[in-house]
Amino acid sequence: MRLAVIGGDGIGPEVVAEGLRVLRAVHPKVETTEYDLGARRWHATGETLPDSVLAELRGHDAILLGAVGDPGVPSGVLERGLLLRLRFELDHHVNLRPVRLYPGVRSPLAGDPSIDMIVVREGTEGPYAGAGGVLRRGTPHEVATEESLNTRFGVERVVRDAFRRAARRERRQLTLVHKNNVLTKAGDLWSRTVAEVAVEFPEVQVGYQHVDAASMFFVTDPGRFDVVVTDNMFGDIITDIGAAITGGIGLAASGNLDPSGVHPSMFEPVHGSAPDIAGRQLADPTATVASVAMLLDHLGHADEAARVEAAVAASLASRAGSDAVTMSTRERGEDLATRAAG
Amino acid sequence: MRLAVIGGDGIGPEVVAEGLRVLRAVHPKVETTEYDLGARRWHATGETLPDSVLAELRGHDAILLGAVGDPGVPSGVLERGLLLRLRFELDHHVNLRPVRLYPGVRSPLAGDPSIDMIVVREGTEGPYAGAGGVLRRGTPHEVATEESLNTRFGVERVVRDAFRRAARRERRQLTLVHKNNVLTKAGDLWSRTVAEVAVEFPEVQVGYQHVDAASMFFVTDPGRFDVVVTDNMFGDIITDIGAAITGGIGLAASGNLDPSGVHPSMFEPVHGSAPDIAGRQLADPTATVASVAMLLDHLGHADEAARVEAAVAASLASRAGSDAVTMSTRERGEDLATRAAG
Ligand SMILES: CC(C)[C@H](C(=O)O)[C@@H](O)C(=O)O
Ligand SMILES: CC(C)[C@H](C(=O)O)[C@@H](O)C(=O)O
Repeated sequence: MRLAVIGGDGIGPEVVAEGLRVLRAVHPKVETTEYDLGARRWHATGETLPDSVLAELRGHDAILLGAVGDPGVPSGVLERGLLLRLRFELDHHVNLRPVRLYPGVRSPLAGDPSIDMIVVREGTEGPYAGAGGVLRRGTPHEVATEESLNTRFGVERVVRDAFRRAARRERRQLTLVHKNNVLTKAGDLWSRTVAEVAVEFPEVQVGYQHVDAASMFFVTDPGRFDVVVTDNMFGDIITDIGAAITGGIGLAASGNLDPSGVHPSMFEPVHGSAPDIAGRQLADPTATVASVAMLLDHLGHADEAARVEAAVAASLASRAGSDAVTMSTRERGEDLATRAAG
Repeated sequence: MRLAVIGGDGIGPEVVAEGLRVLRAVHPKVETTEYDLGARRWHATGETLPDSVLAELRGHDAILLGAVGDPGVPSGVLERGLLLRLRFELDHHVNLRPVRLYPGVRSPLAGDPSIDMIVVREGTEGPYAGAGGVLRRGTPHEVATEESLNTRFGVERVVRDAFRRAARRERRQLTLVHKNNVLTKAGDLWSRTVAEVAVEFPEVQVGYQHVDAASMFFVTDPGRFDVVVTDNMFGDIITDIGAAITGGIGLAASGNLDPSGVHPSMFEPVHGSAPDIAGRQLADPTATVASVAMLLDHLGHADEAARVEAAVAASLASRAGSDAVTMSTRERGEDLATRAAG
């Protein structure tokens, strides 16, 4: 396995080191290349993602990213120039985000409801396309537009991916989340596409929720969701609610997938670079390790993925009720690696 | 007070009747005109909001709306044709939604955190403008766009309104919620406008959260928010999370305001028409009554508004711990009216 590694900034390199430790514990044949990208590089050189680096990244089987950013970088520079550029250039149209409350993890929701869903977020279209413009900036007559671009091609492939995932699960439910009563043009495209692809998957039960109602149900009744498919912007929001209800962003894993395999997919924890705790071995590497499980699964190593998944679950269960026990980033990684190897 | 009343469909007329009962208990001089709008009228006549009705509505001091819609109306018809048309035609640019956990109300969040914020949602711009288009509908080459339109004029007036509200509150905090790292054009306009208007309000402490992070914090730490100002679409989503964490959409009130007073403002509960329980006196009129308090406040009757507010709080507190006690819609309205008149 040829893996490109982008540790990034803040706690990124620390959690990625532990992710690699666990990866190597179950899959000894990993060849890594480290890439220096993120805030540090931008401060030093003004570069976000040089074309030559992008070309090299393409030569790998997958990418593991920690976190990028620091308060000194203007908002949008690394997002548009690095993170989103990677998603768009590498055609990461399936942004996969499991939302699962592991046994032993405390939810902020009363009664610790059972939560086990996957959000399939579109990753290369919608309001993230960067389209739109500005007129008369800085005057009282300024107009700023943002354009959400949606294509049948782009919607259909992510919808079909979500149906496939739903068909493999126990409950076999798929919920489209959109706002088709207001965003009638894109909403109509999404709704029609889901209805048409549904014909190929008669075993999957299909539902629809407006994004506002879905956001509410994530809080009041998250157990009702199995697989959720949604647009790029709505997916950004509801997956953060999903992280919140399942123990916080510190545990949330994600995969930016090109399921066709043409381009390398990228795996990353949902959390940021947390500069305030960087370098102190305080970060929890669990989300990165869970992302490594997704990476293994994506590359066809289902057994190894399952072992890492089980290690994550066991490690989280072992923490239950022992609020006082804290491990350093490295100790946690060693614990996870031991469990996964075992 | 000349009040236009749109009961609407399902439970709408029932809750509006109780809202009017409470209104009359504190403000005897109310002259109401009922307007038959919503799903029933659309089924009967195909009309959503005839121009002549709109013209009549303009002649009132305010509008009280229950809820419109039923499952037989295609998605978008009443939303675009009636609800949003009213907001746009009557320039309801301040969509005001208090998010408050009343004493005695159980939150789905563990530990019943203290929650007391107002969301000031822009109501006449953004992705709700209806701009965009469709090419090659129904073909594999379909393209659908949605365009978010944002103007300095539109952003500045709602931002200034939010600052004024923040300046009148105890904590005097204002948080802009947007996604300026991805929606860089509109986000830049919003961020710059907040920074510039902030100069007029040195006593207000200003913060910023991306919409995904804000959605997370609504669940994990809602107490951190005081006044939130945000765009139309983000406001739609986060106010439903706000309703969820404060006891559900059944308690959430809202005002669609033209603070200039040129057009009548409209007040409505956030919940829908709930056809499944309509006509059975099962609906909780509390959200409508809380909307009546907002109506009174908007029309300058601050004392009367406070009495209705206090009645809502007292009624909710009296329910605490007595899950078994349920009142009919009318009994609840009578209870609220008595408390408010008291
Ligand atoms: C950092 C940002 C560009 C990104 C997004 O909006 O997709 C993040 O919030 C995420 O969810 O991965
Ligand atoms: C019914 C719909 C058009 C409306 C909106 O999206 O604004 C509703 O969700 C609301 O929040 O008032």
